[in-house]
Amino acid sequence: MNEPLQVTVQLGPRSYDIRVGEGLLSSCGSAVAGLGNISRVILVTNPTVDALYGDTVRESLEAAPGIESPVATVEIADGEEHKTLATVEGIYDRVLELGGDRNAVVIALGGGVVGDVAGFAAATVLRGLRVVMLPTTLLAQVDSSVGGKTGVNRPQGKNLVGAFHQPSLVLADTACLSTLSGREYSAGLAEVVKHGVVADAELLELLEQKTDAVLARDPAVMSSIVARNCAIKADVVSRDETENGLRRILNFGHTVGHALERLTDYKRYVHGEAVSIGMVAAARVSLQQGACDAAFVERLESLLDSLGLPTSLPAGLDREAVAGAVMHDKKASGDGVVFILTEGAGSCRQQLLDPADIAAAMGDSAAGV
Amino acid sequence: MNEPLQVTVQLGPRSYDIRVGEGLLSSCGSAVAGLGNISRVILVTNPTVDALYGDTVRESLEAAPGIESPVATVEIADGEEHKTLATVEGIYDRVLELGGDRNAVVIALGGGVVGDVAGFAAATVLRGLRVVMLPTTLLAQVDSSVGGKTGVNRPQGKNLVGAFHQPSLVLADTACLSTLSGREYSAGLAEVVKHGVVADAELLELLEQKTDAVLARDPAVMSSIVARNCAIKADVVSRDETENGLRRILNFGHTVGHALERLTDYKRYVHGEAVSIGMVAAARVSLQQGACDAAFVERLESLLDSLGLPTSLPAGLDREAVAGAVMHDKKASGDGVVFILTEGAGSCRQQLLDPADIAAAMGDSAAGV
Repeated sequence: MNEPLQVTVQLGPRSYDIRVGEGLLSSCGSAVAGLGNISRVILVTNPTVDALYGDTVRESLEAAPGIESPVATVEIADGEEHKTLATVEGIYDRVLELGGDRNAVVIALGGGVVGDVAGFAAATVLRGLRVVMLPTTLLAQVDSSVGGKTGVNRPQGKNLVGAFHQPSLVLADTACLSTLSGREYSAGLAEVVKHGVVADAELLELLEQKTDAVLARDPAVMSSIVARNCAIKADVVSRDETENGLRRILNFGHTVGHALERLTDYKRYVHGEAVSIGMVAAARVSLQQGACDAAFVERLESLLDSLGLPTSLPAGLDREAVAGAVMHDKKASGDGVVFILTEGAGSCRQQLLDPADIAAAMGDSAAGV
Repeated sequence: MNEPLQVTVQLGPRSYDIRVGEGLLSSCGSAVAGLGNISRVILVTNPTVDALYGDTVRESLEAAPGIESPVATVEIADGEEHKTLATVEGIYDRVLELGGDRNAVVIALGGGVVGDVAGFAAATVLRGLRVVMLPTTLLAQVDSSVGGKTGVNRPQGKNLVGAFHQPSLVLADTACLSTLSGREYSAGLAEVVKHGVVADAELLELLEQKTDAVLARDPAVMSSIVARNCAIKADVVSRDETENGLRRILNFGHTVGHALERLTDYKRYVHGEAVSIGMVAAARVSLQQGACDAAFVERLESLLDSLGLPTSLPAGLDREAVAGAVMHDKKASGDGVVFILTEGAGSCRQQLLDPADIAAAMGDSAAGV
């Protein structure tokens, strides 16, 4: 096991460290204890992740100085459909019944749903407890565990209720990647590609050159890739914590991706798959707007394809419905949609677009042109 | 109508103005429009307040440039028992159904419950919308509308879920004070007295000298008193936004007050009444700890009494139950309770106390000594 890689998110009093490496879960206790002044910790996870890593995490926490034993575990049901206020209320109840006070620490062990739900519960119970993220999926390690976005879905759409609440620490154990399904792993790679597209041309080249090692989940290669992604995200977040400007570039591919997820009732695609299709659609919109050339659209499509990701809209999906769903997305303002256009590898810009233009470009994508 | 008094809460990018004066509601539209970049406004109020001031506010808003007409109103049920997540969800639904985006502004017209619930909904829907507070009760004008504390009750206790979310503007119209019940008005005066006790000896003297004008709700006297209170609170909040230290002094009287409210199921006392009893109890604890003298306890009790507020624990209330409730309060940490002691007019300190000491001093209070 190599020394973990470390990235610091610079946010003044809310600054925090992200550590990336193989086997970090087994030493998480001392890292958490290092935060200091802990009255108790509450571990939030789901049954699948609990069975795989729960004991390792609890043992490490319980062995650490300053952490009360036994550590209470709150299991939440697995899956996007449980990313609701009702699940958050279950966490509230457990924290309050355990006599949690403002020095309690919530630990989120799992993927994006666990992180978003536990993070929102931590953001709001007692007006805010510290939260430590132990992301176990690639998606959570490179994206959702970093940056403080927490939230739940509403009947009207995804992530419509939430808070910006920065974690106090993020530990990304790349050994966890070995237990992901192929589909879940690939979906995480979509966000990795996104970071390359918007901010890091070298990362895109690395993915193209080391596709085999990436697909084999080589721990050393993946630790360096995850850390690189966290550094990109940390830089963007530190310059625009609450998404008033720059941070929106991280939504590249997400405007259409979110619409697709909504239209397919969050069942057909995992998030990264929808983002993959959304990125190709966004690249086509960029081409149409003169922001990038056709070669880059092909390059992006080819890379996503080699990583096992879908790149085309499902046949038969109504373009107008996608455009309508885009307008309902929370990034829509009265005058149109703030859309992220790629200008080729590592560069992008924001532009206000008419949803009709987006729909038209998606049409090209659906046709597989 | 005099020129409104203005206080600015200095919080860097989250700074905002509080304006205090007679008749401000009828010109709220231009003040709100001054915030700029508004996609739509959603007015949250309750039926009682809506009947009194809803039309005035809507007319002013709808006449303002840059505000869409008609203004949507969300009525929430009146009373502390509706300060729940279910009520917040009703606001989420209306905001989302109305196609609210991140440039929408929530306007909270009413007392503490409306402000806390609408504020929490605004803090969390779409990860945070701007909120404008139009407090109509004295309690809300001098306390709850300023400082960004929002939240709801849980079965385990009051205000156990919430967020720090600063308003973008506060307009306190002292003409509204004339429609409050005597009980509600007096209850607001409890927080005014609290501000005097912890930070402003002159304010205490003013209340003692002008008791008749205060009880007559003289608009000029009350505008100056409300503005003075807002200035105290603004100063404290700007130095400790999220209650990590100094801000706790504003909890003077609240540790016991909250416990009393819980034990009487939030039915026997309005908040300010419980705080009034809690302040006398806290003064007795202070006396017991050697922080203030007996004369100050008597002076405080006499002032509260002259303002129509209760000062004694209800006969027969179990002291141990109060101590237990105090320990369950969210300000309790593992080692005891951070208690605010008065050192006499305008001065206070924080001290970690054993709940048994608090219970003992409350016993003296209950006996009316």
